[in-house]
Amino acid sequence: MELIKKPVTGMKDILPDEMRLRDHVIALAKDTYGKYGFQSMQTPCVEHIENLSSNQGGENEKLIFKIMKRGEKLDIKNAGSANDLCDSGLRYDLTLPLSRYFANNQSKLLMPFKALQMGNVFRADRPQKGRFREFMQCDIDILGDATNLAEIELINATTTLLYRLGFKDFTVRINDRRILKAMANACDFDADRQDEIFIILDKLDKIGLEGVKEELVSAGFDSEKVNKYIDLFDGTDKGVQAIDSLAAKLGESLGQEVAENLKEIIKTTDAVKKAEYKIEFDPSLVRGMSYYTGTIFEIGMDEFKGSVAGGGRYDAMIGNFTGSAVPACGFSIGFERIITILMEKEYKIPDESRHTAFLVEKGMSAKRLSEIMKEADALRQKGETVLVAVMAKNRKFQKESLNIQGYSEFKDFYND
Amino acid sequence: MELIKKPVTGMKDILPDEMRLRDHVIALAKDTYGKYGFQSMQTPCVEHIENLSSNQGGENEKLIFKIMKRGEKLDIKNAGSANDLCDSGLRYDLTLPLSRYFANNQSKLLMPFKALQMGNVFRADRPQKGRFREFMQCDIDILGDATNLAEIELINATTTLLYRLGFKDFTVRINDRRILKAMANACDFDADRQDEIFIILDKLDKIGLEGVKEELVSAGFDSEKVNKYIDLFDGTDKGVQAIDSLAAKLGESLGQEVAENLKEIIKTTDAVKKAEYKIEFDPSLVRGMSYYTGTIFEIGMDEFKGSVAGGGRYDAMIGNFTGSAVPACGFSIGFERIITILMEKEYKIPDESRHTAFLVEKGMSAKRLSEIMKEADALRQKGETVLVAVMAKNRKFQKESLNIQGYSEFKDFYND
Repeated sequence: MELIKKPVTGMKDILPDEMRLRDHVIALAKDTYGKYGFQSMQTPCVEHIENLSSNQGGENEKLIFKIMKRGEKLDIKNAGSANDLCDSGLRYDLTLPLSRYFANNQSKLLMPFKALQMGNVFRADRPQKGRFREFMQCDIDILGDATNLAEIELINATTTLLYRLGFKDFTVRINDRRILKAMANACDFDADRQDEIFIILDKLDKIGLEGVKEELVSAGFDSEKVNKYIDLFDGTDKGVQAIDSLAAKLGESLGQEVAENLKEIIKTTDAVKKAEYKIEFDPSLVRGMSYYTGTIFEIGMDEFKGSVAGGGRYDAMIGNFTGSAVPACGFSIGFERIITILMEKEYKIPDESRHTAFLVEKGMSAKRLSEIMKEADALRQKGETVLVAVMAKNRKFQKESLNIQGYSEFKDFYND
Repeated sequence: MELIKKPVTGMKDILPDEMRLRDHVIALAKDTYGKYGFQSMQTPCVEHIENLSSNQGGENEKLIFKIMKRGEKLDIKNAGSANDLCDSGLRYDLTLPLSRYFANNQSKLLMPFKALQMGNVFRADRPQKGRFREFMQCDIDILGDATNLAEIELINATTTLLYRLGFKDFTVRINDRRILKAMANACDFDADRQDEIFIILDKLDKIGLEGVKEELVSAGFDSEKVNKYIDLFDGTDKGVQAIDSLAAKLGESLGQEVAENLKEIIKTTDAVKKAEYKIEFDPSLVRGMSYYTGTIFEIGMDEFKGSVAGGGRYDAMIGNFTGSAVPACGFSIGFERIITILMEKEYKIPDESRHTAFLVEKGMSAKRLSEIMKEADALRQKGETVLVAVMAKNRKFQKESLNIQGYSEFKDFYND
């Protein structure tokens, strides 16, 4: 029987060229984040179905790849629904497993815990171009630090990584969930329906402020309130002054410490930055995940649509595991997106070692082959990559193929 | 609702200390194998259920974590068995996915294709100490090379990696499936029952030659044939001479090229080796996987029971995907086992950067904090790891904890 050659729907084989780039970005991320004191950690790809279905992830729950029970526990005859047949599933993000991990290992971890996770996650999404059902996430999180030192370090570390990857002219947009709420409260919108407002506001990039206004009115929100709300977003300034002027408009709806906090983060990261990037206050930034409780931030690039990194503070999530609140803040780069952009830009991996190919005629004696191998090893110890391969019949084609793969030096060995 | 803190049964959370070691071994493996011209590649963790169940893996099939169909395709009411409910499963090794990958991408790959795979595999095994249901495998394979250059490079690269990890005094044992068969044929054992013989022979380490003899007789094999068979294993020499003397005894049962091939591999790897290891011919080496067709090899260490690496030639497997035979040979280090051994040996990761902790009093001004951050970044650019953390109430305990995690330098920053 011939077997199926293609990967399963929505997942992909990664070819050596892309893999070399991925390995490079992974190594650079581990090095960069490591220097900021983030510690590598790992959770299983498989997670309890109860945890995955706990509604923390909201929308993500539909996207779970469920793993069937095994042996006697699998009772198909009496199964009412899919959930009777599964006991676990593949993780759909790294945040929920991180929370479980922290609760499970808290006593063994340095506090605050600065975590670096690079791992694959799985989502049974409708497959589409450039989006896969298995993809790598790269998250840094700081657990146990309620101060904005967490936000500042997360933004510094992430922008430094982007800088080391050669990116510039990008923009960090920052907001706070509490500002979003204060703006809605200031307009007397019902607390119950505010999430609806934010979902519409999140489309601002696509439909503009007028579009948001129209959608809010047609969703049944009072047009006077909507007008007042839209007016709050007016103003082109995006610096710390914009925070002050919005805070003045919001008055008591917004705690003064929220505005101060954001200003400190912007000032400090701006003063320290190495990469040529802007950090801007953006009161319309929403970010989808319902677990965020405070600051939220996102990185965009003019040349490429959508964001390349995103994160925020989620001070309530870990309490679901530990029973008591633990402040937490995270920043995640869009690993797959960054790989795609680098490939489009034909990014060249710096400092790759010299590649030499030794082509050996068939039937070489053990003695002669030993000499060749020793010569190859000596070059490898100097840092070179040396491929020892049997000479192909079509040597010209062999060398051309090797050349494409980065081999610039060739040495032919013939039988005496 | 409080969620489940422990990982799913048989899988584990990896703590930062272990993760640092794993990251180090992964980087060293990528560097070492890379210098030999092995190319990183990757397949999805999820594989078609048809491929996984294709019997290539034999015993492994029972151990598959099956993934449920989704949406309308999941028809519980009319399901007869588990296989009606699943469409995929988690890969249980990296060899089957490699074969599929090669068949799928052959035209884009350099030939011979030297593949390096590091990835997690999943087996629904009975959980036991030190064995996990999710674990990392680290395989190198050479596809498309029928010559023993493949075996030689695999052994050189693998032993060089072990050498760079500080291992010495280990032993590479090598045999050939065709020698195993020739020995059984020379004693007139039925071809049908030879696998049974090899399974018993595989226990030699535990039960000795006498034990093997007894088990063969009680399994119903003719005692005269058994005696003859056991006699073939006599002799303490394990060098290339042993191959000659066994070949002489086997006569026409064994092709001369099989003996020559093994001798060349032993002589060449022995002449090139950097690590202090022995390479020995071992006619009793069996290796479990049924897909091996030629040479088989294994690395053992006197100090630690069991093997730390294993591999062999499997010239028939890839044909199951491509329809035509492709020679293939692989070597896999026991990644988890090596990590365990290194942790037991209290292996120290070489060349770790200096770790400095900046402890910052709460309430620092944005201006002062910027200066501190700049100072930290300057050290990071020199290669140091610098943690900036809020000063804890119990500063002594904080420093002690940081010290355990490798921080040797401390600098305290107070508000003016």
